[in-house]
Amino acid sequence: MRIPPLHWRTDHVLLLDQTRLPGEEVWLDIRTAGDMAEAIRTLSVRGAPAIGVAAAYGVVLAALEGADIHEAIDELAGTRPTAVNLFWALDRMRPFAGQGAKRLLAEARLIEHEDLEAGRQIGEHALRMFASGMNVLTHCHAGGVATSGFGTALAPLLQSKEAGVDLHVWVDETRPLLQGSRITAWELQKAGVSCTVITDNMAAHVMGQGLVDAVIVGADRIAANGDTANKIGTYGLAVLARAHGIPFYIAAPRSTIDYETASGADIEIEQRHPDEVRRRYGLLTAPEGVGVYNPAFDVTPAALISAWITEEGILNSIELDTTE
Amino acid sequence: MRIPPLHWRTDHVLLLDQTRLPGEEVWLDIRTAGDMAEAIRTLSVRGAPAIGVAAAYGVVLAALEGADIHEAIDELAGTRPTAVNLFWALDRMRPFAGQGAKRLLAEARLIEHEDLEAGRQIGEHALRMFASGMNVLTHCHAGGVATSGFGTALAPLLQSKEAGVDLHVWVDETRPLLQGSRITAWELQKAGVSCTVITDNMAAHVMGQGLVDAVIVGADRIAANGDTANKIGTYGLAVLARAHGIPFYIAAPRSTIDYETASGADIEIEQRHPDEVRRRYGLLTAPEGVGVYNPAFDVTPAALISAWITEEGILNSIELDTTE
Repeated sequence: MRIPPLHWRTDHVLLLDQTRLPGEEVWLDIRTAGDMAEAIRTLSVRGAPAIGVAAAYGVVLAALEGADIHEAIDELAGTRPTAVNLFWALDRMRPFAGQGAKRLLAEARLIEHEDLEAGRQIGEHALRMFASGMNVLTHCHAGGVATSGFGTALAPLLQSKEAGVDLHVWVDETRPLLQGSRITAWELQKAGVSCTVITDNMAAHVMGQGLVDAVIVGADRIAANGDTANKIGTYGLAVLARAHGIPFYIAAPRSTIDYETASGADIEIEQRHPDEVRRRYGLLTAPEGVGVYNPAFDVTPAALISAWITEEGILNSIELDTTE
Repeated sequence: MRIPPLHWRTDHVLLLDQTRLPGEEVWLDIRTAGDMAEAIRTLSVRGAPAIGVAAAYGVVLAALEGADIHEAIDELAGTRPTAVNLFWALDRMRPFAGQGAKRLLAEARLIEHEDLEAGRQIGEHALRMFASGMNVLTHCHAGGVATSGFGTALAPLLQSKEAGVDLHVWVDETRPLLQGSRITAWELQKAGVSCTVITDNMAAHVMGQGLVDAVIVGADRIAANGDTANKIGTYGLAVLARAHGIPFYIAAPRSTIDYETASGADIEIEQRHPDEVRRRYGLLTAPEGVGVYNPAFDVTPAALISAWITEEGILNSIELDTTE
């Protein structure tokens, strides 16, 4: 069950506009690196691994335009500050800057392929922890279109049907941008997986009733000590899961682990525009002029995380891996 | 600083349509008990104490119409199941069913006046626990228009400015109906109190940064053992507050305490329509046909509550009072 966020087409990228889901499936023609940077900035493509892949193809577009590759890489790197996969993918493209569009395209395709494989493997590893009848809660969207097509946290859930494992998924709607109700629920429905949407503030109530057996979410950056940045609301879920004795899993490709970042305190948290909270759907949902705080991410301390699931397996700690 | 939800006018009620806030201040003419029942059902008037007061005036309207008073009381009682103030107010009206509109009006006015006084006193008691410079977090809306005009949880915050106490309030937006961002922020702005709106899933992040000194919320029903039903999301906040060592207060008039209900397990939780979550503002925010769970309330166990603040003072336990 592959649900890809983009397709390379000879000289341009067909990119799913995720802001229009679930109402419409609109595919954008992205023909320049600048267009790709704008698509990342405005969240037409979002999800840490997908941003990395999209940015890599953006570099290819720069080469086809005859634009300055290093300038294009800098512009793409400046679109969003938190997801480390963005910088990681661009760092992989940079050495090939002088080698032409064909070589850059090969590298972008390789990044996409590796991410796709990572998603498949994450799904297989994670699925070993889930059995039929379990209730799994997830937050935001770490599924197909947030990656190269198989997802990270959603990978085991999207694969569950084919694997003969009957799960029920609680989907946090994930304010302010509703990636859970808009995109996660849409992908689970496509995959035929039973799911129920809740508002973020219902998660504790559902846990308190004994209706959650595990929580699994993605990651935007994992620090060297295991502290994990992910969509705002993740930290609260981790505290609630601990209070209810529920295991809390992070699923992410290894490229999300940033050994340059010692701990969560060193992760820059992107602040987004107040109108994402204050003025959705053209309607005023808070008084004009009232203050709004709108961090896109929070950091969950490693101590609250039961395991990190990467393409290489299930890790009980990140620090053990720093020797590689 | 009184912000009332309704005004009695000779033979009808002027009722603020809270569903239109903060964009518009629309006052409805409510001329029959049926209109009042509909206004309660559709949340034009909401907030446990305000529902009780509105229902009492609904009984007066029934008398003026020449309608069957007991039938009207039954209809009003059937509008919403969780707030005990509704049943409490109607039980106060019932003995006067045969005594004409004038006597019923006197009782409705008395209920309103007592609730107003309770709010003022709750505010005074609670304010003793707050000092300038403190950050207080609140959820949903337990302010003026949710009561007779002074609020419960919001009473100390609305009074703080006049009392010379400079607070900053974190306002949970409170999905799905956004009573926090729409109404709490609107009242705090009216009262000149510094506030910042956050989405519900940001509360843990703000607490984790040390930016919350206390949480105060209202209540829809308090069981005899202190378990407290309030807007969905309250239980999660209480767990988070405990995990961060932050005091968690319930503010409510004594009429919210229901000695007939032994514990939270006996409180009926109102389930509301899935489209409140799925289809706000005319836009599809989840796939058509996806399951949605939409409980309006949750129950916070007494053990997570630092104190209950009523018009009579600050209680450290509810059970102590059952002897009265």
